[in-house]
Amino acid sequence: MSSTRHYTLTLSCPDRVGVVAAVSSFIASHNGWITEAQHHADWEQKRFFMRQEVLAESLPFETGEFCQRFQAIAEPFQMDWRLTDSAQKKRVVILVSKFGHCLYELLASWQSGDLEVEIAGVISNHEVFQKFVEWHEIPFYYVPVTLETKSAAYEKVMYLYEALKGDVMVLARYMQVLSAQICDRYPGQIINIHHSFLPSFVGAKPYHQAYARGVKLIGATCHYVTSELDAGPIIDQDVIRIDHTDAVDDLIRYGKDIEKTVLTRGLRYHIQDRVLLHGNKTVVFK
Amino acid sequence: MSSTRHYTLTLSCPDRVGVVAAVSSFIASHNGWITEAQHHADWEQKRFFMRQEVLAESLPFETGEFCQRFQAIAEPFQMDWRLTDSAQKKRVVILVSKFGHCLYELLASWQSGDLEVEIAGVISNHEVFQKFVEWHEIPFYYVPVTLETKSAAYEKVMYLYEALKGDVMVLARYMQVLSAQICDRYPGQIINIHHSFLPSFVGAKPYHQAYARGVKLIGATCHYVTSELDAGPIIDQDVIRIDHTDAVDDLIRYGKDIEKTVLTRGLRYHIQDRVLLHGNKTVVFK
Amino acid sequence: MSSTRHYTLTLSCPDRVGVVAAVSSFIASHNGWITEAQHHADWEQKRFFMRQEVLAESLPFETGEFCQRFQAIAEPFQMDWRLTDSAQKKRVVILVSKFGHCLYELLASWQSGDLEVEIAGVISNHEVFQKFVEWHEIPFYYVPVTLETKSAAYEKVMYLYEALKGDVMVLARYMQVLSAQICDRYPGQIINIHHSFLPSFVGAKPYHQAYARGVKLIGATCHYVTSELDAGPIIDQDVIRIDHTDAVDDLIRYGKDIEKTVLTRGLRYHIQDRVLLHGNKTVVFK
Amino acid sequence: MSSTRHYTLTLSCPDRVGVVAAVSSFIASHNGWITEAQHHADWEQKRFFMRQEVLAESLPFETGEFCQRFQAIAEPFQMDWRLTDSAQKKRVVILVSKFGHCLYELLASWQSGDLEVEIAGVISNHEVFQKFVEWHEIPFYYVPVTLETKSAAYEKVMYLYEALKGDVMVLARYMQVLSAQICDRYPGQIINIHHSFLPSFVGAKPYHQAYARGVKLIGATCHYVTSELDAGPIIDQDVIRIDHTDAVDDLIRYGKDIEKTVLTRGLRYHIQDRVLLHGNKTVVFK
Repeated sequence: MSSTRHYTLTLSCPDRVGVVAAVSSFIASHNGWITEAQHHADWEQKRFFMRQEVLAESLPFETGEFCQRFQAIAEPFQMDWRLTDSAQKKRVVILVSKFGHCLYELLASWQSGDLEVEIAGVISNHEVFQKFVEWHEIPFYYVPVTLETKSAAYEKVMYLYEALKGDVMVLARYMQVLSAQICDRYPGQIINIHHSFLPSFVGAKPYHQAYARGVKLIGATCHYVTSELDAGPIIDQDVIRIDHTDAVDDLIRYGKDIEKTVLTRGLRYHIQDRVLLHGNKTVVFK
Repeated sequence: MSSTRHYTLTLSCPDRVGVVAAVSSFIASHNGWITEAQHHADWEQKRFFMRQEVLAESLPFETGEFCQRFQAIAEPFQMDWRLTDSAQKKRVVILVSKFGHCLYELLASWQSGDLEVEIAGVISNHEVFQKFVEWHEIPFYYVPVTLETKSAAYEKVMYLYEALKGDVMVLARYMQVLSAQICDRYPGQIINIHHSFLPSFVGAKPYHQAYARGVKLIGATCHYVTSELDAGPIIDQDVIRIDHTDAVDDLIRYGKDIEKTVLTRGLRYHIQDRVLLHGNKTVVFK
Repeated sequence: MSSTRHYTLTLSCPDRVGVVAAVSSFIASHNGWITEAQHHADWEQKRFFMRQEVLAESLPFETGEFCQRFQAIAEPFQMDWRLTDSAQKKRVVILVSKFGHCLYELLASWQSGDLEVEIAGVISNHEVFQKFVEWHEIPFYYVPVTLETKSAAYEKVMYLYEALKGDVMVLARYMQVLSAQICDRYPGQIINIHHSFLPSFVGAKPYHQAYARGVKLIGATCHYVTSELDAGPIIDQDVIRIDHTDAVDDLIRYGKDIEKTVLTRGLRYHIQDRVLLHGNKTVVFK
Repeated sequence: MSSTRHYTLTLSCPDRVGVVAAVSSFIASHNGWITEAQHHADWEQKRFFMRQEVLAESLPFETGEFCQRFQAIAEPFQMDWRLTDSAQKKRVVILVSKFGHCLYELLASWQSGDLEVEIAGVISNHEVFQKFVEWHEIPFYYVPVTLETKSAAYEKVMYLYEALKGDVMVLARYMQVLSAQICDRYPGQIINIHHSFLPSFVGAKPYHQAYARGVKLIGATCHYVTSELDAGPIIDQDVIRIDHTDAVDDLIRYGKDIEKTVLTRGLRYHIQDRVLLHGNKTVVFK
């Protein structure tokens, strides 16, 4: 469906009878053609989640009027809702350090059209990928981070993110811990790839921790960044089998394959509005 | 949800505007509390699929009246639909030969309450599991099959299935090819586990075929039986990694783990009315 | 190979030049036919590990003389070594509580000949599986555990394990924490299945912890028991994908599939002398 | 170990007593330090396979003398053997068409040092990746292929491969079927990634075939190219789960992730001399 222009409506609200009926009747009454629909009722928290993709051309109005009219449905149900238009590609700002595997993966997916975003810019605390990024005609910003310049550097990152009109910030193995200020400012907008199967091996050098513990699988976790380190809502995870023959260096190398795959998958869910936040957890409508 | 009595409505129909609205409005108008809902629109074939779980106690009527009333919704949309009641456990008839792993798995899941069915009976062309089955207080029927008695034996199987009021027939590594007559008589009711990753290695001795070809993963396939051997709609599949150190006997042993897991998973989808047929394919609402 | 009688030699020693040459020359000089051989050099710890399977009938002597003669090779290399004979099946004592899935799995594998052990006995703090076990003609011992009787109960477990001449004790979802005394007495002999992907979710109710954290995969870990809870050497692990639709009860049910598979796999490695201890880690020669 | 210079000895021979002893005694007698060793005895075909990594600096001679001396061991055992030197990086020639995911993956792995090869050149029947390749300072050769020019084009490919002193040719989603002449000329040197779980869906449009059959997992296969289409020895395979919501386009996109991972993994095994041919099968010493 992704090739056809569509609107995506996502919402959550207290669970009660009639939510689906209200929303689907609204869409049907305007002749809207639903191409994809997912619901989830959290039985414990009594909260309802929904995502609907509607063909843009099937509706008699644009997103502005849709929102205006839908407000009447949303209010009585106390919906927390949002409408996006696939014609408006999300603007991604990538932060990277010296490991290039996630960056290559993101640019390869973008170049082939498999990741339907605008890459607004790449920010790095190292210059190593400057020419590679620029060869793709994507702006590159070198923002070095040292203990002394940390605060100014993060100001610069925030400034650039705003100036580039970023919709989502992707930490593609960015080896710096963002300030709580940035994390708190963009909740649900900063996506990180952590190189462990969280909550195992929080913090630095997870592959060394995994090696020391003698686990038989290693993993990677794509999650939203919050001010609490490696504790944000998890979007996706995956693992790969290792054994006693694998040294830490092998773990690092295998890990790259999962890291980039999980990050790209998680980002794709995000940009297609498939991820709904739910406290510190996520509902991911695949 | 499975512990609470619920009705499950499954349907498919030509895709057009208003299906979800019609169904959900009907349910909402009777105060039905939807606990699970899934949709699927097949864009190519322009067909729409839906599954709804509604809390039984939230509705003012039983299944009989539900069906009567729903007919008015179903007809104009040309729905192919069905309503089931979780209080009516499906009756499973298991066919088995000499390999016991799938039988143990099914009985273990049933014994622990994880597989919510009635085991109406076990039919086998060997006596080896008679006492084991009977120990579980499940009727066991020994129906030997030889080249000469094949036809009579299958008559007996059909007779027993009817007499036991079977809802679903499970071939738990039953090493006989059922007659076309049985296959055609119970479409979408006979579930087989094939010990290969179909469509690879159709027919006999798939592990020997896999070994000879030198594949690096072997698999199992749970599918509905049709009169064309190993070609029915696939419900679920899985694979496991092997390597050059594994002889055919190892493949057979590893395979058992996937076979029983995939069969039980496929059967669970089936008895929870999560599998909708779609030509020779399935829509599985997990 | 498992169907032919063979001796399995396992050893570890400080790594230096000539270990393989010494061992393989010893075996070759007695015309020993090696059917499987694995080595591992731990580069960091400078320790060497080896496992050799030799056809029993190819050697001119029995295990007694093998050991006597091999001692001359082992000493200069400071080998920590062991020889086992496949004709001597290991005696397994199973401890179980109220969850039966691992017990069914073990008995099914044993019944089909896929798990080549003697089941010396089953000990349980509940009576629920007594008749099921006894139907298999395996002795069942009911040893209730309460806060007051704990100490006496564990004495009884140890007494039974010794009396049954157990070689390995399998905690097949035994819901009691063994005393440090038992753990310390049988190092590398007690195998547990923990229902999480350790080191995540140590301790009680791991599925509840996993649900609360919102992970996207859950796992199980087969490990040797030490007196430190859930911290012993890991033999094997596996995971299964979950999502937001899965409640804690679903996690528990899915988890059973991995638990029993991982436990049986880990136990098989153990009884085939494929697991060598290495500090708090394992070398597993698959 | 890969960072230290080492020699890798691979061999296969008729299985008999004393092979390991002979080889390991030879290495030990020259004080060779073995860092990795793997054996495999094919019981059915009575053939023995071996791979040994020896630290270069531990030996008193270079590869030339090693080979000369080893010949005396090899001959009586009728060994088919080879010695390689990790200091001599293998020269890879990549063939690519319009899909860039495998090319990006290979160059990313090479750029990060994870794939220790020389990329001797990239040959393509399209110009789309010319600048991207050249940006990496790798020679790019545009060799268009049409029905009429096919024969001349393949002559050119062979000429380039020879001129570039290629050790291995990688078909990184090269959408042309190589001539039997090329396939036969470089047995065990041409590595292809096929976008299905072979032997399922041989030939063109495997994702369309998979979609039509309704399988629940799709896969990719890395194999050596022989003159029989898609039938060469398999090096590695992997799969990914799909469901009814996935259209052919989704299959193609998911498939890319496995294709590039499996291809890179298979190529890594090959360049590290971990793959031994065995008729139409492979022994892969991981």
